[in-house]
Amino acid sequence: MAPDGPKSAEDRLIAAYFRPLATHPGALKLTDDTALLTPPAGHDLVLTADAVIGGVHFFPADEADMVAKKALRVNLSDLAAKGAKPLGFLLTLALPKAVPETWVELFARGLGTDAEQYECPLLGGDSVRTTGPIAISITALGSVPANTMVRRSGAQAGDAVMVTGTIGDAALGLELRDAVTAAKRWKLDNKFSYQLMRRYLLPQPRNALAEAIRLNASAAMDVSDGLVGDLGKLCDVSGVSADIDVARVPLSEAATSVVASEAAAIEKVLTGGDDYEIVCTVPQERLADFRAAADAARVPVADIGRVTAARAPPRFLGRDGKPMKFKQTSFSHF
Amino acid sequence: MAPDGPKSAEDRLIAAYFRPLATHPGALKLTDDTALLTPPAGHDLVLTADAVIGGVHFFPADEADMVAKKALRVNLSDLAAKGAKPLGFLLTLALPKAVPETWVELFARGLGTDAEQYECPLLGGDSVRTTGPIAISITALGSVPANTMVRRSGAQAGDAVMVTGTIGDAALGLELRDAVTAAKRWKLDNKFSYQLMRRYLLPQPRNALAEAIRLNASAAMDVSDGLVGDLGKLCDVSGVSADIDVARVPLSEAATSVVASEAAAIEKVLTGGDDYEIVCTVPQERLADFRAAADAARVPVADIGRVTAARAPPRFLGRDGKPMKFKQTSFSHF
Repeated sequence: MAPDGPKSAEDRLIAAYFRPLATHPGALKLTDDTALLTPPAGHDLVLTADAVIGGVHFFPADEADMVAKKALRVNLSDLAAKGAKPLGFLLTLALPKAVPETWVELFARGLGTDAEQYECPLLGGDSVRTTGPIAISITALGSVPANTMVRRSGAQAGDAVMVTGTIGDAALGLELRDAVTAAKRWKLDNKFSYQLMRRYLLPQPRNALAEAIRLNASAAMDVSDGLVGDLGKLCDVSGVSADIDVARVPLSEAATSVVASEAAAIEKVLTGGDDYEIVCTVPQERLADFRAAADAARVPVADIGRVTAARAPPRFLGRDGKPMKFKQTSFSHF
Repeated sequence: MAPDGPKSAEDRLIAAYFRPLATHPGALKLTDDTALLTPPAGHDLVLTADAVIGGVHFFPADEADMVAKKALRVNLSDLAAKGAKPLGFLLTLALPKAVPETWVELFARGLGTDAEQYECPLLGGDSVRTTGPIAISITALGSVPANTMVRRSGAQAGDAVMVTGTIGDAALGLELRDAVTAAKRWKLDNKFSYQLMRRYLLPQPRNALAEAIRLNASAAMDVSDGLVGDLGKLCDVSGVSADIDVARVPLSEAATSVVASEAAAIEKVLTGGDDYEIVCTVPQERLADFRAAADAARVPVADIGRVTAARAPPRFLGRDGKPMKFKQTSFSHF
């Protein structure tokens, strides 16, 4: 509130569209310098930050509510993989002048819907101008009972390697949006094309599985830069390897259809990014409990292989039993 | 680590320049999806997020270490104003392709120096590509003993209005960088010009004063969008007003010299942004303790006026005792 002038446009946008989202008492209605959070006693905080940039992580034409959801969900996916329950998030939003107010309104609406669905309220943030594309950075906070966060580093030889959902859909969806000829090349009907593109547009983070992971997994991470590269990272910090049976990697009907048309597409499926599924390792004696908990949470999980003792990159074994070779193992923006 | 390919360039940059900064055990050496923090028992968390954008919050030619420090310090300033002790921060860094690795190296070096100086270690983050200018978003976490965070909303009629340091230097420094004729118009020598431009380049947040504020202030906020607008916000959420004696607002020698050359520059001094000083209200009975604590912390503080009972914008009284009128009361990017 300015002493003898009108409110700034920034203050007005925040008051109109973001204050209604700041339902947590610690958000102080976005009227203070900071937010205030009393962490649950006997719990550890779990913290993650991810940025999404227009033209890099989403298409400029994507609907603003989908963009907001994606920005929040990529962070929620990290919390889920660590077995953490969301507490809330902070947002910084950099907008070019040309973005109309209706975009901001729809963005806030999408964000609010997800904040409610995932019980992860807006705690605070900052809005600024940019001369570049829309840039959204979100820091999400979660909590786990003390000393129970599931790390990448706990995998042990003999553990089962499990993944949620289906792998590769988003990477194929991105290819469909990037290359107009892909749908024809892959002989995809509209339904399958739409399903794959939708997976790229809007991740479905596995927060419903967080508790099952926390109670049963020896190591876990979310699959955001491709299964091959991400499992490689998990194996590296755990000091182990893994043998993965590629035939057991779960594919959607649409992705199965793509691979049937173009066998080489399996590389994109396994190394493309944006899955936002979870890969975790589960000791054999916890496997029945993990499966039961996943069933109860209605999250499909698949056993795709086994952790092995060698400190080495995981092997992805094809139908011939031989390790596959990949041109690029992991998605990188650099 | 990729199974059978080289590390991605992103992984390599993180390992080379940012991993050495991740000295907190909860940063997990930046090898996990998230960071882990055990908040101090009996404390509340204080959370803030600010973004700085190339060409908006800093000049593209500014040295990368100064940019890093500014990005962290604008957040540290918020923690200081709330009486909070820093715990750590998360960073998202969006870089255009053209930025050379030497820039990243210098950026990380500046960030590391400040992380050490302010005891605010890097906990985690994300690095991404952008087609726009460099965009840096930082979320900083601090802590206060439970229920002691200093809000904007606690000012009471009769409290003294105190500010730290000097006001207006950064806004004049920005004008000096934007308008080549300003130094001549203001008859500034090189020393004064440099001092003012330096204040814009590199904020000096008042974290040394945090404890004194927490123990003595009834309300506080950092001055980042101009004293007039920011004190207006504090008065608004506190439901009070204030009478400020403009002659008692502390100015540096350089700013005094500018106002002597151009009386109208006082408006820029009072309404320009980027001070990163603190304005707080202190009950009369706490004033001696507050001044003693500020002296001990070597932070200059000045009594500039009094909180009054009316729910109204604060009045900035000129030498004639009449309220000044301002064209624009507060800096806004929108």
